[in-house]
Amino acid sequence: MKLVECVPNFSEGRRPEVLDEIVGAMTAVPGVRLLDREMDANHNRAVVTVVGEPEPVLEGAFRGIAKAAALIDLRTHSGEHPRMGATDVVPFVPIRGMTMQDCVALARRLGERVGKELEIPVFLYEHAATRPSCENLADVRKGQFEGLSKEIGANPDRAPDFGPRRIHPTAGAVAIGARAFLVAYNINLGTRDVSVAKAIAKAIRHSTGGFRYVKAMGFELKDRGIVQVSINMVNFEGTPLFRVFELVRVEAERYGVPVVGSEVVGLVPEDALIACAEFYLRLENFKRDQVLEYRLSESEGSE
Amino acid sequence: MKLVECVPNFSEGRRPEVLDEIVGAMTAVPGVRLLDREMDANHNRAVVTVVGEPEPVLEGAFRGIAKAAALIDLRTHSGEHPRMGATDVVPFVPIRGMTMQDCVALARRLGERVGKELEIPVFLYEHAATRPSCENLADVRKGQFEGLSKEIGANPDRAPDFGPRRIHPTAGAVAIGARAFLVAYNINLGTRDVSVAKAIAKAIRHSTGGFRYVKAMGFELKDRGIVQVSINMVNFEGTPLFRVFELVRVEAERYGVPVVGSEVVGLVPEDALIACAEFYLRLENFKRDQVLEYRLSESEGSE
Repeated sequence: MKLVECVPNFSEGRRPEVLDEIVGAMTAVPGVRLLDREMDANHNRAVVTVVGEPEPVLEGAFRGIAKAAALIDLRTHSGEHPRMGATDVVPFVPIRGMTMQDCVALARRLGERVGKELEIPVFLYEHAATRPSCENLADVRKGQFEGLSKEIGANPDRAPDFGPRRIHPTAGAVAIGARAFLVAYNINLGTRDVSVAKAIAKAIRHSTGGFRYVKAMGFELKDRGIVQVSINMVNFEGTPLFRVFELVRVEAERYGVPVVGSEVVGLVPEDALIACAEFYLRLENFKRDQVLEYRLSESEGSE
Repeated sequence: MKLVECVPNFSEGRRPEVLDEIVGAMTAVPGVRLLDREMDANHNRAVVTVVGEPEPVLEGAFRGIAKAAALIDLRTHSGEHPRMGATDVVPFVPIRGMTMQDCVALARRLGERVGKELEIPVFLYEHAATRPSCENLADVRKGQFEGLSKEIGANPDRAPDFGPRRIHPTAGAVAIGARAFLVAYNINLGTRDVSVAKAIAKAIRHSTGGFRYVKAMGFELKDRGIVQVSINMVNFEGTPLFRVFELVRVEAERYGVPVVGSEVVGLVPEDALIACAEFYLRLENFKRDQVLEYRLSESEGSE
């Protein structure tokens, strides 16, 4: 069975009844399973995680976008998180039996339909991007709803991949793409000096010379009296958790600061954790099918 | 769905067609799934691993024991591995939704049936043992088929839990019990001096003062020019892999010897590996349902 994950972000973090309607529209499609839903009132944003076979997930995503366009008005929306659309961003993530190219194809099909049927401009991003300027979501969303409204028709670099070359009056625009599974991973350091966390974040992240698949920032955790390197692992196979952990540990040592702990926020694929066991136990010739649960699921499938 | 594993050991390591018949008898029961089968000619012994819901696994185990009794004659059997029966030992292992007590109950039901219907004496061992002298399999099997034949009727300490108080003329006797999942785990050391491996095995194993749930021996790996601490982790929750690895590493350091690698032989539950990731990454508040595949299987179950 093929499985794809879809994680649409909606610009609604304060009205649970609106999110109920959107989630209801998505999960009304047989075969779409809800894994998670989260709302943040400060960000005024919701993140919904569904999983299933490609066709139902595609249909569910379309219905979610349509429902959000009917219920959310960007003209009166404000929140801390940058946004350009009622449905702001829709990534497809390969989970099982899917390649990244399969997810790119899904993103293109969804984008075409959203552009045509809902008349919302669509930008393909990350692995689905058709030009370098759209690979990075932050670049696509520059100026947000208000800024893009002016630029979308005037600036050829900001023309959408699908749909009209004008902003949707209430639903804005949407970024649809394909990306690897994202692991939110934080490492806590035993100091009150946030400059240590910031310096280490700078050392490990791609944008300032660090690991290719790492985004990172340094924060203070005031209530605990410690600081945190907050990390997005955008491809845990390319840059594994243990390597990031070890580098942070070594960099912190240089300041005489201990790693007091780390945390995974949300979901993590078991392969990311098993890779850590392999590394630290120095496992030789370990095969995935030695994991009991994997063997069980295989033999279930073969019945 | 409840899942129990059953790992009968049969005294046949040279005639594959005999094992085929035994495995065929077991898997003919609907719901019994074969996970693994291994034969060893030197040991003249086979290990079969099946899994399924309790009732089918119980029935499959009974049929396997009956078939082995019909095809294997202990009077003409010899091999390196100690044995007392055509079916030598039958452990039940809780996998999902089962307690150890559930497995003890299965062992008792199987033992009663084997004693009554097949007239083979049955000893309950490990968690199913009814007396301390039968907890350890090695004690139950002392003297093997030949020695037990004489003692079983004469020595009250060696009377079976079920079945006749005399050895079965060709099928001997069988130990039936319940135990935790066993992980076979070896740690390789960069020295040719086997006394280092033996000393470390002694330091970590229960019988000589080490970890409660560890059995270990030291071996030479002549072809690689290294030595190995070969370990049976008989309860990986009670004594976790990472703790054994770290102690072996520290003990080896005392001899100036490096750990060059480790290996898992056969199957390992994912929890045993995830616990290693938690330890080394110093994970805080990690919940099992943060593992993507776990969440997926939960949501599959709830459909």
